[in-house]
Amino acid sequence: MNLQRFFNPRSIAVVGVSDNERKVGHLVAKNMLKQGYPDNLFFVHPSGKNMLGKETYTSLKEISKPIDLVVLAIPASIAVPYLDEVASVGCRNVVMFAAGFGETHTAEGKGLEKQLRDKLAEHEITLLGPNCIGYINANKGINATFFNHVAPKGNISIISQSGALGSAFLDYVAAKTYIGLSHFISLGNKSALDESDCLEYLINDSATKVIGMYLEDVKDGDRFRRTLRQATQKKPVVVLKSGRTTEGSKAAMSHTGSMAGDDAIFEAAIRQGGALRAESYAEFEMILKLYSLDAVPTNRNILVLSNAGGMGVLLADELISQGLNLVTVSEETSLKLAKAFEDTKKISVHNPIDLLGDASAFDYKKAINLTMQEKDIGAIVVLLTPQANTEILETAQVLQQVYRSFKYKPLYPVFMGKDSVSEAHTYLEKEGIASFRYFAQLPAALSKIIAADEAAHAPFLEISPPDYSLPLQFHKHDIQLLFVEQGNTSTFLNQYDSLSLLSWAGIDVAKTYLAVSQEDLDTVVKEEGFPLVAKIASSKITHKTEVKGVITGITVMEELQQAFHTLSSVGSKDSGCYLQKMYKGHELIVGSKKDTTFGTVVLIGLGGVYAELLKETIELVYPFSYEQFRLALHNSKLQRLTKEFRNIPPIDAQKLYDVGMRVGQIVDTLEQVQEIDINPLIASGNTMIAVDGRIILQQK
Amino acid sequence: MNLQRFFNPRSIAVVGVSDNERKVGHLVAKNMLKQGYPDNLFFVHPSGKNMLGKETYTSLKEISKPIDLVVLAIPASIAVPYLDEVASVGCRNVVMFAAGFGETHTAEGKGLEKQLRDKLAEHEITLLGPNCIGYINANKGINATFFNHVAPKGNISIISQSGALGSAFLDYVAAKTYIGLSHFISLGNKSALDESDCLEYLINDSATKVIGMYLEDVKDGDRFRRTLRQATQKKPVVVLKSGRTTEGSKAAMSHTGSMAGDDAIFEAAIRQGGALRAESYAEFEMILKLYSLDAVPTNRNILVLSNAGGMGVLLADELISQGLNLVTVSEETSLKLAKAFEDTKKISVHNPIDLLGDASAFDYKKAINLTMQEKDIGAIVVLLTPQANTEILETAQVLQQVYRSFKYKPLYPVFMGKDSVSEAHTYLEKEGIASFRYFAQLPAALSKIIAADEAAHAPFLEISPPDYSLPLQFHKHDIQLLFVEQGNTSTFLNQYDSLSLLSWAGIDVAKTYLAVSQEDLDTVVKEEGFPLVAKIASSKITHKTEVKGVITGITVMEELQQAFHTLSSVGSKDSGCYLQKMYKGHELIVGSKKDTTFGTVVLIGLGGVYAELLKETIELVYPFSYEQFRLALHNSKLQRLTKEFRNIPPIDAQKLYDVGMRVGQIVDTLEQVQEIDINPLIASGNTMIAVDGRIILQQK
Repeated sequence: MNLQRFFNPRSIAVVGVSDNERKVGHLVAKNMLKQGYPDNLFFVHPSGKNMLGKETYTSLKEISKPIDLVVLAIPASIAVPYLDEVASVGCRNVVMFAAGFGETHTAEGKGLEKQLRDKLAEHEITLLGPNCIGYINANKGINATFFNHVAPKGNISIISQSGALGSAFLDYVAAKTYIGLSHFISLGNKSALDESDCLEYLINDSATKVIGMYLEDVKDGDRFRRTLRQATQKKPVVVLKSGRTTEGSKAAMSHTGSMAGDDAIFEAAIRQGGALRAESYAEFEMILKLYSLDAVPTNRNILVLSNAGGMGVLLADELISQGLNLVTVSEETSLKLAKAFEDTKKISVHNPIDLLGDASAFDYKKAINLTMQEKDIGAIVVLLTPQANTEILETAQVLQQVYRSFKYKPLYPVFMGKDSVSEAHTYLEKEGIASFRYFAQLPAALSKIIAADEAAHAPFLEISPPDYSLPLQFHKHDIQLLFVEQGNTSTFLNQYDSLSLLSWAGIDVAKTYLAVSQEDLDTVVKEEGFPLVAKIASSKITHKTEVKGVITGITVMEELQQAFHTLSSVGSKDSGCYLQKMYKGHELIVGSKKDTTFGTVVLIGLGGVYAELLKETIELVYPFSYEQFRLALHNSKLQRLTKEFRNIPPIDAQKLYDVGMRVGQIVDTLEQVQEIDINPLIASGNTMIAVDGRIILQQK
Repeated sequence: MNLQRFFNPRSIAVVGVSDNERKVGHLVAKNMLKQGYPDNLFFVHPSGKNMLGKETYTSLKEISKPIDLVVLAIPASIAVPYLDEVASVGCRNVVMFAAGFGETHTAEGKGLEKQLRDKLAEHEITLLGPNCIGYINANKGINATFFNHVAPKGNISIISQSGALGSAFLDYVAAKTYIGLSHFISLGNKSALDESDCLEYLINDSATKVIGMYLEDVKDGDRFRRTLRQATQKKPVVVLKSGRTTEGSKAAMSHTGSMAGDDAIFEAAIRQGGALRAESYAEFEMILKLYSLDAVPTNRNILVLSNAGGMGVLLADELISQGLNLVTVSEETSLKLAKAFEDTKKISVHNPIDLLGDASAFDYKKAINLTMQEKDIGAIVVLLTPQANTEILETAQVLQQVYRSFKYKPLYPVFMGKDSVSEAHTYLEKEGIASFRYFAQLPAALSKIIAADEAAHAPFLEISPPDYSLPLQFHKHDIQLLFVEQGNTSTFLNQYDSLSLLSWAGIDVAKTYLAVSQEDLDTVVKEEGFPLVAKIASSKITHKTEVKGVITGITVMEELQQAFHTLSSVGSKDSGCYLQKMYKGHELIVGSKKDTTFGTVVLIGLGGVYAELLKETIELVYPFSYEQFRLALHNSKLQRLTKEFRNIPPIDAQKLYDVGMRVGQIVDTLEQVQEIDINPLIASGNTMIAVDGRIILQQK
């Protein structure tokens, strides 16, 4: 969809202009004038009388010039039929503010929404809204919103499902923060234009350097993820999403189903798209500011310089706990630093560098000039507290000079306090330096920026590569038969069939024997030896360990016989039991499920009895590249298992990726499959054996 | 130590007053004058010339009146001998700013520190500092610091190991925030007065409503914890401590040793003392402000009221993830709310209550008057974003009226944005209402305040109760023998002895048989039956599962024989193996160790092979009350195990407390014991059996 004309119209008509200062029709008209839309702005109102000092037309038809965009500031009931008039003058782009549609959850509202959609289809109209606040394209002088402010021009674009967020953000940038807006787009009900459409448009908007999105839901998960990926190849995208704590209420039948909540999946999609998720509105604002000012760390190595030792250590704590590194100052620089101060005082030359409470602007200058030359520093945070003789503004000026002379190498002044540091803060912001009053949220922001950059550069998979194509016979015959055999009453495949399916998909499974006699026991021991595991063979019992359905560590025949009798009597009569060789390794859980928004998702986590308690898992939207998997693994405690742990050889990440992709592929390919759990997958080195599997079928 | 006179002197002499505006001696003199110390303020300088418009004495002796406090603004080398003069005029209270003592880590500095301590002892002088910024008692007109500001009077007292933190805080409160200081006390080198002394003094200072402490270390952990407890029985204490990420580097020989890091122990001490730990300086400031203004939630049930649906949901996410509850609005109130708005619009009457973007001040008033009447609401957060017709200041006024008429029931206005909401923000602060621009850190702060209140009200144990007294023979004979037998080379007791010791301390242990023959195997089977566990009997091998030293799930004789032969051959020749009954339950780890700062500490956590990976643990300083243990358990995932989980009966918290206390008692009582690990303790219902234990001996 090409929205170039929609967001860059050569002419705009505002319909429903009003003299009443509290009316939307007045506010929009005023904003358009104040924002400075150059020419071809037309006001429409049936009265035809001049408003806001400008000629007003009684109808669109009266306007002689072609109209690129119509902004409808009229109530829902008249706005919908008015689309006929819009179409009649040849305009196809509309912004509609009116509420009272589907969002009311009333029969009336839903009826109106249906009428609206019909009209849009009939006239091929592109609509923003309804129930929205409109949009701003500040650099083009367009402010088709009923906000309180003219938007300062800048390079931040925001797409928001909340108008209120826009009003708070606009209030923030309007307050002499020296950052500004390119676009603000209020999505409203998304009856036509949605988040992906607008995101796609902003990718090629040259005035936009960073994109912020506030979302409550996503219309088309797959498209959103792909569009996000396209966008993040060109510019950063910061997403703020509500609903972090509200999990899907649908009862899950597998561990995967219950552990891979809606929000974790959304987060996976964001991450794979190379975007960054802000945790709060405050963080959203801070990160947009950092990107807008190009204040982006080049790596995780951070240096701290301060005139307050304790504060420096507090900041260091925060940096480390956010996964950043306190860079070690090179010996050369340490010596130079010590030398530079030897005549006056003994400073701490280790990171955090403490220039002591009496640090002058010149002290800061000496120290920062030396440390800026260090090669592997990703950013420098300069802490200042207003002490007795602190040269606050002079220090700010020093920082500005250094920042320029070192070609904008990232530098974050954190001048703490309030009134004393206020002037310096304003000065720094005016000079385009991202300056802060507290460091509390900065380390998290920097860490997320670096992680998003890594994610955006990891290869992205749109389709599953050939390695993971299910074998042909899998499709055509056996599996179909398997499903048919289950009949309509079964909700899942029994363990034997589940493992067979996993095996056909190329996953190593523990050979499972159904033993019903002593002869069978002898055969298994002959083929597999000891130790063995015996499992109940009833298809009715799923969480096996909860019904004492598994006996592990069987090492001799007598014990095997005992296990056989115990389990056979618990299970269906004469059903016998399953036998498998017992494997040694880490107990992992690998699962997949169909998500209504994002399609197939894969979960990999620590298994065992405490799996659901500890939720040490990673989620990925299928398909995913090996690098994306590696990044997700890296941020989880599972990473530790890729080194030797408790006498088990390091697990092979490539092999684990392979298992995850194959499990995902089954769910993605077979419409009959809703969820899969392999629990546990016994992993040791590059040997990964599914010893128990459960395949949940799609319920009709 | 009675510090009443020290912090409330009837007369003060400042020694080293200067005309040079950059000198400490000038700044202190100026601050004393500006803060308005009433009479009996004397300046001393050898020149005897008037300074800052005031008579100056050439020496202390020249002053005819008795001096309660001497403030020394002179260099270290002359300050130390000057103490003779101080003593000679009968003064025993000194503030010393000079640096150059032990903190320099030089021989010269250490020598000076020694001289200082000798002088203090000789003259029985109470000293604040050296290397400090002094102290403020704002309400008494004392500002014996070299800060930049006069301190606004108020009810917050701060004890700080960083002077810079004080300068930032003072700058904050001085900027018309309408909160202020009672005391600021800079600890410096703590050569005499330390954090516990100052804390003790503030407990009974009636002007102090809340105490904030910034600490880098603690002089006497045990005293600090007790003093903290005394303080929190009267007023809240907020602690900010650096070093969160720097763990003790000493190599640990047990799981407990490696998992219970210095910071976790410090945190336990704070919590048991009933204090609150702030995570960052920003949070420290926010929480002090909340307490200062009495803006404390009465319980965890929070109501959100907003004119911005999306923001409301974001806040709700944050509240829930911080362990607070989104209170359910009663049906009665919901109906009243719906009715109150039925003529104008359809608002969402569920929490978060959305008054929609056009909410007027009157709308806020209607909604808040109704919801304030709800009984079980702990606090109301009122969100406002500056939208088109938002009545910002009027809404603030409404809130102030409601706040008063509902007798200061907690109410937090969060007016988002910048310039538009600035006036309302100032108005609210002036009216004594804790008002915010972002909600980002508020939920965490509220949650911590409630948790600290619970902790302060939980019983506190100073000594271990009689239930946990070790039996007499334990002290006198057997154990001493045990340690003697180990000789000087052993670093730990073998499993058999470790379990014996645990058993003597009243902990149930798995009966452990040392089997060296078939006859032994027969005996064990006869006494314990199956299933059994066999373990290697070598004292050299400690992390048993890592060397394949444990065989579990032995259910028949043949298997037992196999296990016996396997383990006997791995262990010392002819040593046989240990045998135990196999228990079913949760695998927990319970340990204890001696901490250099806080004494005996106890750790309880999830055991098993991933214990160190997942670190799902709680730490407690010994002794601890059952309620303190319950609170710690409640904040951990272990809490889940007190309900049925994976077919294992709910573990009995009282019994687990009992095990923890007994383990702590062993470490606390026996000087020979450095660390204890029970790993695992098999817990099911109120049956808790130590099946493996390791006791690490104190190294000489």
